[in-house]
Amino acid sequence: MTERTKGAVLIADGLADRPVSALDGRTPLEVADTPALDSIAAGGECGQMDPIGPGIRAGSDTSHLAILGYDPFKVYTGRGPFEALGIGMQVQQGDICFRCNFASLEGDLQLSSDGAFSGARIVDRRAQRISEGTHDLAAAVDGMTIEDVTCYVKESVEHRAALVMRGPGLGARVSDVDPHEADSPPHAAAGADDPSQKTARVLNEFVLRSWQALKDHPVNQQRIADGKLPANIVTPRGGGVAPDLEPFAQRFGIPGACVVETGLIAGIGRYLGMTVPEVPGATGGADTDELALAKAIVEMLHSHDFVLCNLKSPDLGGHDSDPQAKVLAAQQFDNLVRHVIEQAPADIHLAITADHATPIEFGDHTGDTVPIAVRGPAVRPDGVRTFTERAVVGGALVRIRGFDIMPILTNLMGVQDKFGA
Amino acid sequence: MTERTKGAVLIADGLADRPVSALDGRTPLEVADTPALDSIAAGGECGQMDPIGPGIRAGSDTSHLAILGYDPFKVYTGRGPFEALGIGMQVQQGDICFRCNFASLEGDLQLSSDGAFSGARIVDRRAQRISEGTHDLAAAVDGMTIEDVTCYVKESVEHRAALVMRGPGLGARVSDVDPHEADSPPHAAAGADDPSQKTARVLNEFVLRSWQALKDHPVNQQRIADGKLPANIVTPRGGGVAPDLEPFAQRFGIPGACVVETGLIAGIGRYLGMTVPEVPGATGGADTDELALAKAIVEMLHSHDFVLCNLKSPDLGGHDSDPQAKVLAAQQFDNLVRHVIEQAPADIHLAITADHATPIEFGDHTGDTVPIAVRGPAVRPDGVRTFTERAVVGGALVRIRGFDIMPILTNLMGVQDKFGA
Repeated sequence: MTERTKGAVLIADGLADRPVSALDGRTPLEVADTPALDSIAAGGECGQMDPIGPGIRAGSDTSHLAILGYDPFKVYTGRGPFEALGIGMQVQQGDICFRCNFASLEGDLQLSSDGAFSGARIVDRRAQRISEGTHDLAAAVDGMTIEDVTCYVKESVEHRAALVMRGPGLGARVSDVDPHEADSPPHAAAGADDPSQKTARVLNEFVLRSWQALKDHPVNQQRIADGKLPANIVTPRGGGVAPDLEPFAQRFGIPGACVVETGLIAGIGRYLGMTVPEVPGATGGADTDELALAKAIVEMLHSHDFVLCNLKSPDLGGHDSDPQAKVLAAQQFDNLVRHVIEQAPADIHLAITADHATPIEFGDHTGDTVPIAVRGPAVRPDGVRTFTERAVVGGALVRIRGFDIMPILTNLMGVQDKFGA
Repeated sequence: MTERTKGAVLIADGLADRPVSALDGRTPLEVADTPALDSIAAGGECGQMDPIGPGIRAGSDTSHLAILGYDPFKVYTGRGPFEALGIGMQVQQGDICFRCNFASLEGDLQLSSDGAFSGARIVDRRAQRISEGTHDLAAAVDGMTIEDVTCYVKESVEHRAALVMRGPGLGARVSDVDPHEADSPPHAAAGADDPSQKTARVLNEFVLRSWQALKDHPVNQQRIADGKLPANIVTPRGGGVAPDLEPFAQRFGIPGACVVETGLIAGIGRYLGMTVPEVPGATGGADTDELALAKAIVEMLHSHDFVLCNLKSPDLGGHDSDPQAKVLAAQQFDNLVRHVIEQAPADIHLAITADHATPIEFGDHTGDTVPIAVRGPAVRPDGVRTFTERAVVGGALVRIRGFDIMPILTNLMGVQDKFGA
């Protein structure tokens, strides 16, 4: 009695879709040959899932937070912390995090003692979408200390970067330095309360020093020689505090692991204290080695009660509006799931789903429902036989939210505490 | 137009189940012969219900609170008050209630003026699971007054008891006296705010006096003579304040009654100001007289608009992992429901459901959905013909929560105020 089993949620990123004209009105999942997915549907309970809530367009971060049992409406207080996690920065609870641009400034920037910028204006908010040299530029402004605050900077794609401020007494209610329009000086940040005023003061000083460090940087000397605008200032925006999230193992009483391909989801897993193994061969692209991911899942299940996996490739086909690529990615997911079924403990409770839809004809995330199926010894199989967006309608799970997955799974696994007597 | 009808919710405790190997993969409800339940399904609306929320393992207390229209996430602030209600103690709003153990103490207990215990240690937290004499031990410490606070104590099963503190200016944010490990002195309670510090002060004095009253008690003299450890101290834990709950009649505008077999649910009913009749023949066991319960329901419906009934026996079959006992209990519930259909007003709105699943192969409550069916003149019958966990999938009620029952029923009964104009 009351036996405990292991559990896993296998997520095909962006897998759900809408009818595609090029596929005669079918979805990629309806076209793909997916016997492993169908076997889970046929042997388990099926339904639709709203990753966040009905109709709400989920990001991969908010969706994975919800699926891992953290209500994104409560814990997602700004993109800054998740942007920083997404590019592999170390983020700690209480850090103030910003999205940043490398921008092009013209003039001689001054910061007055009462905290106002003058003497210069931003002529291109994105430094002509600079594509090379940002690693060196970020290194030139990374790690500086202002008052008792350390500022960490790392480049992202093109002109983008992230800034993590770590120190005592900081607040997150600060306005943006990025003026959001060209031909404007940087906006001096202002704080809405005492801790945020400290953040604003440090932030404005950081922006001034970024210009001092970058204006004569070799990367920019070369850009000017090439007739390009220099990327000579860092302009932060979207500040947010890294939220106080209860570690996964504490919240659910079981150790968990994330077998994932993208930095953002790996960052969320690490932030929650989960094990995030390196998986050689996992590229995050269509050429990824899905069996390497499957083997990592099975390996993690030896030492963890719960594993979340994310296969990125289906999302790429959606963003690229490439139906055939998405059909192949669905089959790649099927291959991954088949290996897990064959190699994981026989009594595991397995859920398969997507974190959101990325429809071919829309080319970005949408708020449509995604299919979900859960298999294992404790479920009551329903009449659904195949795993597609439309076939799961009428299944026993009916329509759940991403946030419901962990209670449902920990209930089936026999590891959830009773609420009440 | 706008005629009012009566309503009832008939609950088979723990009835829902999972596929049972010994029943060829069917559930007890799928095996049982239940023509009355099926007639309600066939003539009404059906669906699945999450007693609390998807996947959440409900206790009988949290589940019944939800079904009676009180959100357990808001009102369930600790088990203490519901434990005390469950063993038949009188609990009033604002009382501070604790779960307690009778424990075995060795040494000469001292309580310093700054509130710390010394000189003795607890050698068995459960006094060897004492099974006799606790009524007399509880009586010896019941009713003492400390400062302006009265302490009521009553024994529960084995070494367990409950303590209710009643008096002005008490808070519930107090730490446990029970050290939760052997070979430790009792932990002196500490309060997190001024009212809770008063509670802690009274509590520590109560614990000291419990030792003084019990150490030479005849029950313990006999235990020592028999070579057993004495049950010579009361160790409280899990303090909670009895919540401020709007009476049922005030919340829904109609008088209600609870025809139930267990002390816990009777206590909740009384706490909400509902009528809770004594039902001769209702034993709470497999030998209960289900027709006596049915007659009490019909009787209560003469003077009350709403009746909740709980038949306990299906839950016992689940906890005992006895499929045949649970099949028989399902048929007992069917017999109860049949009598209510025959004897209650013809236009009554009747809901049948369970408060949670207690699967045979798990042996305890789980967070699976439970089936629900509602019959009456105002419903729109759907295509479901039988009342089982799987047959109700696809019914018109789809998937609701326990908290939704009272709005659904009072709507059908025509007794609900309009929200808006």
